[in-house]
Amino acid sequence: MKIGIMGFGVVGGGVGELVATNAESIKRRCGEEIEIARILDLRDFPDSPYKCFTKDFNDILNDPEIGVVAEVMGGTKPAYEFTKKLLLAGKSVVTSNKELVAKHGTELLKVAKENGVSYLFEASVGGGIPIIRPLYTSLSANELTDIYGILNGTTNYILTQMIKEGATFEDALKGAQEKGYAEKDPTADIEGHDTCRKIAILASLAFGTYVDSEEIPCEGITKITLEDVKYAAKFGSVVKLLGITSRAEGGVYAMVCPAILPLGHPLASIDDVFNGIMVRGDGLGDVMFYGRGAGALPTASAVLSDIVDAVKHKNSRVNLGWEQGRDGYLLDAKNLTARFYLRLTGGKAEDFSGKGYEVYTLGEGYEDEFAVVTPEVSENGLEKMLEDENGLGAYNVLSRIRLVAE
Amino acid sequence: MKIGIMGFGVVGGGVGELVATNAESIKRRCGEEIEIARILDLRDFPDSPYKCFTKDFNDILNDPEIGVVAEVMGGTKPAYEFTKKLLLAGKSVVTSNKELVAKHGTELLKVAKENGVSYLFEASVGGGIPIIRPLYTSLSANELTDIYGILNGTTNYILTQMIKEGATFEDALKGAQEKGYAEKDPTADIEGHDTCRKIAILASLAFGTYVDSEEIPCEGITKITLEDVKYAAKFGSVVKLLGITSRAEGGVYAMVCPAILPLGHPLASIDDVFNGIMVRGDGLGDVMFYGRGAGALPTASAVLSDIVDAVKHKNSRVNLGWEQGRDGYLLDAKNLTARFYLRLTGGKAEDFSGKGYEVYTLGEGYEDEFAVVTPEVSENGLEKMLEDENGLGAYNVLSRIRLVAE
Repeated sequence: MKIGIMGFGVVGGGVGELVATNAESIKRRCGEEIEIARILDLRDFPDSPYKCFTKDFNDILNDPEIGVVAEVMGGTKPAYEFTKKLLLAGKSVVTSNKELVAKHGTELLKVAKENGVSYLFEASVGGGIPIIRPLYTSLSANELTDIYGILNGTTNYILTQMIKEGATFEDALKGAQEKGYAEKDPTADIEGHDTCRKIAILASLAFGTYVDSEEIPCEGITKITLEDVKYAAKFGSVVKLLGITSRAEGGVYAMVCPAILPLGHPLASIDDVFNGIMVRGDGLGDVMFYGRGAGALPTASAVLSDIVDAVKHKNSRVNLGWEQGRDGYLLDAKNLTARFYLRLTGGKAEDFSGKGYEVYTLGEGYEDEFAVVTPEVSENGLEKMLEDENGLGAYNVLSRIRLVAE
Repeated sequence: MKIGIMGFGVVGGGVGELVATNAESIKRRCGEEIEIARILDLRDFPDSPYKCFTKDFNDILNDPEIGVVAEVMGGTKPAYEFTKKLLLAGKSVVTSNKELVAKHGTELLKVAKENGVSYLFEASVGGGIPIIRPLYTSLSANELTDIYGILNGTTNYILTQMIKEGATFEDALKGAQEKGYAEKDPTADIEGHDTCRKIAILASLAFGTYVDSEEIPCEGITKITLEDVKYAAKFGSVVKLLGITSRAEGGVYAMVCPAILPLGHPLASIDDVFNGIMVRGDGLGDVMFYGRGAGALPTASAVLSDIVDAVKHKNSRVNLGWEQGRDGYLLDAKNLTARFYLRLTGGKAEDFSGKGYEVYTLGEGYEDEFAVVTPEVSENGLEKMLEDENGLGAYNVLSRIRLVAE
């Protein structure tokens, strides 16, 4: 089977490397050899062992022998147009492009189905961690209820540095950039957008109806301070950036936000650049997937697993997809109840005694402030309480972070 | 699609329950409805909502409309004979029966292939945790190198009670029996046989050639004492029962043994009845799967995922399998090097200073004994050292446990 690769950056290069080094086991799994017949990239790679580079997309589109194409270009332009044309031409496409899947997945999956080919995206979430395929195969017999994920290695590295090394957010970010874990412009990671696209894909797949990542409330980690991390430690907890989605009557909840997890929570010990995804199902209980969520070879290995799957199904197709989204399906996350951590100034810790709050102080040097953990309340309810000038509204709120129970 | 169930115990009953409660999502995944047409069990179930019980295997074998059968009887007799007949008759079989897969998997997979049907066993390892399918799909593009697994919930519960509650082995076992986590005759769990069958299945599948569980060196947890747990804690480690398999030149290593893991190891925090399986691959790095390794509904959900897969592939088959075993393929685990913990009496801790050993003592009440951690050595090498009367042979060895590095 001949395949094409679009984009020869780190992931595309990794796919090339894995195909070359694992040729024999790939043949055993596929039942046939895989040959990289065309690589589309605008750059030149004179030192590459591959000699099949092209700058013209039509060389892949019009080659009748190419049955599967790996789209590892990233972005939506021209990836969307290219992918659609390939699917319409009866070629399967596999991708690591979370942005494209989150934005145009519904349409591309439909086009794939209508043309009897596969559109696969294991590499779009969790790097080398198998999560997409388990969701539509192994876990498919379960009514899934919740997914909690640490889905972004960059932010998890930064938070781990803050928790374990006492680094400030700024220093931890700088360190991440020096190590190559964070981009020069880290916005998509630290503001939660990357996590948001991933949780949107997981929610769409797990619950069967499209969720638009742009409609999901999304908060990053830029406001998290060392003090927040210290208060959380006081009650045996850590701060993590989570993507969360839950099924409910009439729709689903989804959100991206920093969350405080007790140390006993399976996700609390996922540190550094690792990702962890916890899936809860009715019969199943909790299942967790853990591994390196990024990096050339882990991501490439996920792309390659999709290539193998597409080749194995060349006479049929891999059936996965979700229904079109609908108004009101994404429920208002502010109605979800939780306990909240609040870091406060402008009053005394004693004010909260005997009122159902837990109260924490940091001791010397922090006499002006304290933190409370509220009773369970919806975010809407909390906001009302924060407006009440005879209640929480009397205080200055420095931080507000949702707690996730064990 | 009509299906049969053989064995209506906890797992079979769970399959019945999940099929009934998740009918709609199953239909969405399969593309058609699943109907339980026949349930084989020698017992009567007058109160069951199902009215299709039979005591005669031929009612399933000879029903041309039954395309998939779930074998959840356990044991090899008559499960082996029944499974083979069903595969020969062109029916797919899915099973939770690790004993049967570990013993006769090679032949049954071959018969399935020859007859164009599937033989699937996701539920045989890790209960509801998807591990078998990821091994032959998502991770198939990787050259896998190692698998480390906490594969038995009963022993992990017992060890957790010893580590966290200071319970003795005997008390922890009794507690496990009272909670229904351990059988009246707990031999298969505590002696490691259950773990051994599971690691044999994982090794066969991951590395492509059959490994006979009966040839794998297997040690359980019956000799683990509270003192061992305390010494391990002294160097920031915990004792876990592991199934281990590694690829090497010319074959594979496999073993089942108690092992001492540093707290930073991903498997170290898998507690109570949970299972965890760590898979290492060349491009992939480490991936871990975590969840409830037993229980009616988790196991049933794994069985059901195989049923769905078999139904989806009714016109083709799910292609998985391994080659027949060969002499010398299973390498002698005593050649593998590791550091070892030794609990010693009959000498002084000071004897070991400056010799490359780490030395630990427990303090008051334990003046007669101490523990050392050896430098890296093969088990063969260690045994020679233990025979040397001028060396370790001068001491009385109370315990010997392998260390696993982070």
